[in-house]
Amino acid sequence: MVWTVRSLAERLGLRHQGAGDRPITGVASLTSAGPDDLTFVSHTAYLDALANTRAGAVIVSTDHAGRAPCAVLLSDNPYAAYARAAQLLCVEHSPAGIDPSAVVASDASVGADVHIGPRAVVEAGATIGDGAFIGAGAFVGRDARVGVGTRLGPNAVLAHGCEMGARCRVQAGAVIGADGFGYARDGAEWVRIPQLGRVRVGDDVDIGANTTIDRGALDDTVLEDGVKLDNLIQIAHNVHIGAHTAMAACTGVAGSARIGSRCTVGGAATILGHLEIVDDVHLNAMSFVTKSITLPGSYSSGLPVENSASWRRMVARFRRLEDLARRVTHLEREKSDKST
Amino acid sequence: MVWTVRSLAERLGLRHQGAGDRPITGVASLTSAGPDDLTFVSHTAYLDALANTRAGAVIVSTDHAGRAPCAVLLSDNPYAAYARAAQLLCVEHSPAGIDPSAVVASDASVGADVHIGPRAVVEAGATIGDGAFIGAGAFVGRDARVGVGTRLGPNAVLAHGCEMGARCRVQAGAVIGADGFGYARDGAEWVRIPQLGRVRVGDDVDIGANTTIDRGALDDTVLEDGVKLDNLIQIAHNVHIGAHTAMAACTGVAGSARIGSRCTVGGAATILGHLEIVDDVHLNAMSFVTKSITLPGSYSSGLPVENSASWRRMVARFRRLEDLARRVTHLEREKSDKST
Amino acid sequence: MVWTVRSLAERLGLRHQGAGDRPITGVASLTSAGPDDLTFVSHTAYLDALANTRAGAVIVSTDHAGRAPCAVLLSDNPYAAYARAAQLLCVEHSPAGIDPSAVVASDASVGADVHIGPRAVVEAGATIGDGAFIGAGAFVGRDARVGVGTRLGPNAVLAHGCEMGARCRVQAGAVIGADGFGYARDGAEWVRIPQLGRVRVGDDVDIGANTTIDRGALDDTVLEDGVKLDNLIQIAHNVHIGAHTAMAACTGVAGSARIGSRCTVGGAATILGHLEIVDDVHLNAMSFVTKSITLPGSYSSGLPVENSASWRRMVARFRRLEDLARRVTHLEREKSDKST
Repeated sequence: MVWTVRSLAERLGLRHQGAGDRPITGVASLTSAGPDDLTFVSHTAYLDALANTRAGAVIVSTDHAGRAPCAVLLSDNPYAAYARAAQLLCVEHSPAGIDPSAVVASDASVGADVHIGPRAVVEAGATIGDGAFIGAGAFVGRDARVGVGTRLGPNAVLAHGCEMGARCRVQAGAVIGADGFGYARDGAEWVRIPQLGRVRVGDDVDIGANTTIDRGALDDTVLEDGVKLDNLIQIAHNVHIGAHTAMAACTGVAGSARIGSRCTVGGAATILGHLEIVDDVHLNAMSFVTKSITLPGSYSSGLPVENSASWRRMVARFRRLEDLARRVTHLEREKSDKST
Repeated sequence: MVWTVRSLAERLGLRHQGAGDRPITGVASLTSAGPDDLTFVSHTAYLDALANTRAGAVIVSTDHAGRAPCAVLLSDNPYAAYARAAQLLCVEHSPAGIDPSAVVASDASVGADVHIGPRAVVEAGATIGDGAFIGAGAFVGRDARVGVGTRLGPNAVLAHGCEMGARCRVQAGAVIGADGFGYARDGAEWVRIPQLGRVRVGDDVDIGANTTIDRGALDDTVLEDGVKLDNLIQIAHNVHIGAHTAMAACTGVAGSARIGSRCTVGGAATILGHLEIVDDVHLNAMSFVTKSITLPGSYSSGLPVENSASWRRMVARFRRLEDLARRVTHLEREKSDKST
Repeated sequence: MVWTVRSLAERLGLRHQGAGDRPITGVASLTSAGPDDLTFVSHTAYLDALANTRAGAVIVSTDHAGRAPCAVLLSDNPYAAYARAAQLLCVEHSPAGIDPSAVVASDASVGADVHIGPRAVVEAGATIGDGAFIGAGAFVGRDARVGVGTRLGPNAVLAHGCEMGARCRVQAGAVIGADGFGYARDGAEWVRIPQLGRVRVGDDVDIGANTTIDRGALDDTVLEDGVKLDNLIQIAHNVHIGAHTAMAACTGVAGSARIGSRCTVGGAATILGHLEIVDDVHLNAMSFVTKSITLPGSYSSGLPVENSASWRRMVARFRRLEDLARRVTHLEREKSDKST
């Protein structure tokens, strides 16, 4: 399929101006785009680059359309419109078919137009929805379910009984449904508690490379629709994450935490277990959440770097803060003794 | 095998009351259990739920046995007793046999009742103990050793020469025995130091999904019996972890650190290298250990989140702490000058 | 090939003293070395051990050569010389050849003396340089490029179109070229932005186990020559890392950060996106970088652990720092009012 400025505009529901017949075959940045490329402007800082772009078309807000030397598609949210256009223009290469080196159980249910890559394994009772993509070396355990159009990257693991909705994207090496970390103490020993729940993932959920999402102990671990998780994130057993919440990389969420919808987590955050975070909470990078957050808003706890010599002095002062506070109290008392 | 209240009690060494012949086929929570399920009460907060449970039997302390509307198994530690019962009732599905798509070296030693999954690789000289489970796509390197009854999840890696004891559980994607991060500086360049040690893991050790444990440089990296590691943990070369120490996810331990027995680490902790932590140390989540800990006890260093506006003010104050201390000293001196 | 003291000295460009004909077959520590082993002394703390070593030869500085009871190789940098010697003495086991269970596309270009392990996958259009090693279960995507002598560990992933230079070492489970975490906000929803860039890795780059390096959004993510990354590190899309920069484990670098050459990062650091760090910056463990660093030097921001009871008091004081500062200001004002 060849897109043109006009057909793209129609598909995206946008107005357009200029050469509607121009064929568009790819996307590129303002400065590197050529005459067959679509680009976009999302910030006034790029208006000079816009004036000089060699792109075939640009997605831009009405305010700045006059600066474009090429065809324009008009959008109030050029970045989101660009994202949708790029999805149309850059279709992923995934011919349907089961590679002869894949191991697919005879009683697995495999939909239409499914791609199962070399060395992938699909166990007994698993269901693979229409148009799904199972990457090379990926593993789908027994009775697991992969929704319509969902993609598992190379060597990703979806363990037995776990379920993913439609149009999800799981990057390489992610592990969904490993055993939760559950033990009962008995003297010095830890007695393992079998992890009998599953992971249930909604539609349009993305899971990053080498991210791990543990199965529940008795009930399930749940990710609602539209959740987006970056790489190397840990989601412990029985966590519940509300719709459209997004987390940047290296974040860890401990067991049974309940995180609301439309939250954002800025990366390398640590969220303790058995607490609740309401909807629309925004945690900055390196946040440490130790108790429930009951009000929407922005929260932080990371201390930014200083020159190491300064930092050492600051830490020493911090350790003597109790002493400093006592000295101030002492000064206040003396003064008040004097005035009486 | 069908368990009954009586046979479970006998096997677990517990007294029981009520219908001893009742068959028990599974476990469930107090509120979701049905008449064939075993459940447990470990906290007085659940006594009302206990009174209303539909479970066939409940593990409970003698004090609360009278509240149960069903058969009871009496235990001083109901949670540990439940863990052991659940292990009996929920046996994992792992038929013995070597999948035809697995690649097992002809001179590997494979014990009785071993499961080797599709596409697993067992290299030359490796030893797989009786009853071990090698998951789909898992890798056991040359001369590596997997103990009796030990399980490797899908796509887990046990590198050449590394050894795991009996009854260990390695979750999907874990990497045991990658090269340690060792370099000698030579001007601007880093010269790689071959990592010639191994990883030696004791019995009953659990290793979480995508956790990495590096082989030693010359000597070995060692995890003693009963160590439990959650997901996405990094154990660097030549670390030594004492028996029954447990670490929650996202923790990193740097090279040659020596951690005692029965320690707990609350997650996302960072432990620097070439230091020693004695037995029975408990590190809260996000702890940063920069020098040896010589006394048992509880340690912390994470700062909990604040509203971001408050946090910014606190950080600004923190940075001017030196100045604040100087002002207090100045006030003290003036006062003392006045009094003399 | 059998090395002797003399042939090692010649190859390493070092002077030697003592029995030049002694065969050397391995390396070991000062205390465990036997008569066929080479060892080294890099610190005066080990001079007593040197006097008692049973090693066949030792690499040592001229100052301390007199203490050695065996043959010596003289070096100003014994540790680096040892590293190079160990690379010569401990050659890795990697017979050339393509395992019959590997899946190699007919139009992939495979060089001479290449090892492709069991179940590895090499897709169409990929190029594997001479002497490269593709571990069991590793994945090389379509049109990806593996340089001469580069090694991919078991189950490592190099995604489509990504390029690695010569003599790189990628440990097991690392993922190079997963999609970057890029979304445009549209109301409550996140619209995925196709990640069309690649990862380009220079020569002599090492990448640790389960580390993830995302492909760029439009331009590429770049690691220059000699970069060394430890395990479980996250490098986001469009990051640029300068030559010979080394990062310890559990560090995360957010999108479009630009890190200079010869930097070191001490582990568990978090570096935000869209900032620049100049050459020769040293970040201590747990550093949190929130804005550009324009001066070389050492930076820190981690707070070391305290006994938990003390820590709780320190945190409480920290939270009331604003109040403490106000009280000091109040005391200063009163004093100044009095003096006027």
